[in-house]
Amino acid sequence: MRYFEDASIGSTATFGGYDVTKPEIVEFARTYDPQPFHIDEEAAAESMFGGLVASGWHTMAMCMRMITDRPDPLAELAGVGADNIRWHEPVRPGDHLHLRAEIVDKRPSDTHDDRGYVTTEFEGINGEGTVVVSYETTAIVRRRGYDDEA
Amino acid sequence: MRYFEDASIGSTATFGGYDVTKPEIVEFARTYDPQPFHIDEEAAAESMFGGLVASGWHTMAMCMRMITDRPDPLAELAGVGADNIRWHEPVRPGDHLHLRAEIVDKRPSDTHDDRGYVTTEFEGINGEGTVVVSYETTAIVRRRGYDDEA
Repeated sequence: MRYFEDASIGSTATFGGYDVTKPEIVEFARTYDPQPFHIDEEAAAESMFGGLVASGWHTMAMCMRMITDRPDPLAELAGVGADNIRWHEPVRPGDHLHLRAEIVDKRPSDTHDDRGYVTTEFEGINGEGTVVVSYETTAIVRRRGYDDEA
Repeated sequence: MRYFEDASIGSTATFGGYDVTKPEIVEFARTYDPQPFHIDEEAAAESMFGGLVASGWHTMAMCMRMITDRPDPLAELAGVGADNIRWHEPVRPGDHLHLRAEIVDKRPSDTHDDRGYVTTEFEGINGEGTVVVSYETTAIVRRRGYDDEA
């Protein structure tokens, strides 16, 4: 587990490995984003994508799963927000995604000794090396030695 | 269906009605964001939230579903991105969410006659009238008269 003190501005990491499947694209989209180009292969073929693509919010969810699966996760207490999400390229069935992360900012909380804020820039990259999504998030991260005081 | 021409800067709408349930919170989080405060009631009770809360990305997905369920959806060709996502307050089992939308910008595409860009600010609001999330999105929206040329 990495704590606030372990987060170094400028440090980078590459991790993940998410196999995007057609059934998962369709299931997510039927529940949360049932636009034709996410759920209907024929309609998708005629869309500007030329085939089924994942909902942008599904892409964010898949990225989150790669973040929680990191062997060295941040001791996150909560998410504050996300900025500058750009869905650069479609995410398609058969894509294999990974993430590149760079810590770009950190600051201690003014009001709580046990926590601080860490901002990370992410790039989601497919098997061809194409950046399909980029965004940044800010999380509330625990400081060392406060494990029982969350 | 509302086309690019129908999107008026400054126009607002309130819509939606999403019942947040514990099984759905846990199922989404087990798949995409298995942090203890999303999937484990006991751990969540001891977290800063004091109980189970929805993944922030689940909240975005629920908002998307309310957008696609609008009776008068925008003729969306694709999403470009999202900005300024702020998860202001926890989303909990039993919450009933709705959305408030305001169109804040629009511009025709420089390169494609059949489309333009529309930026909308959203607020997700619970049954107590508390804004739980705010964000803005930019979408590529079809212009009138190009229905067969997507």
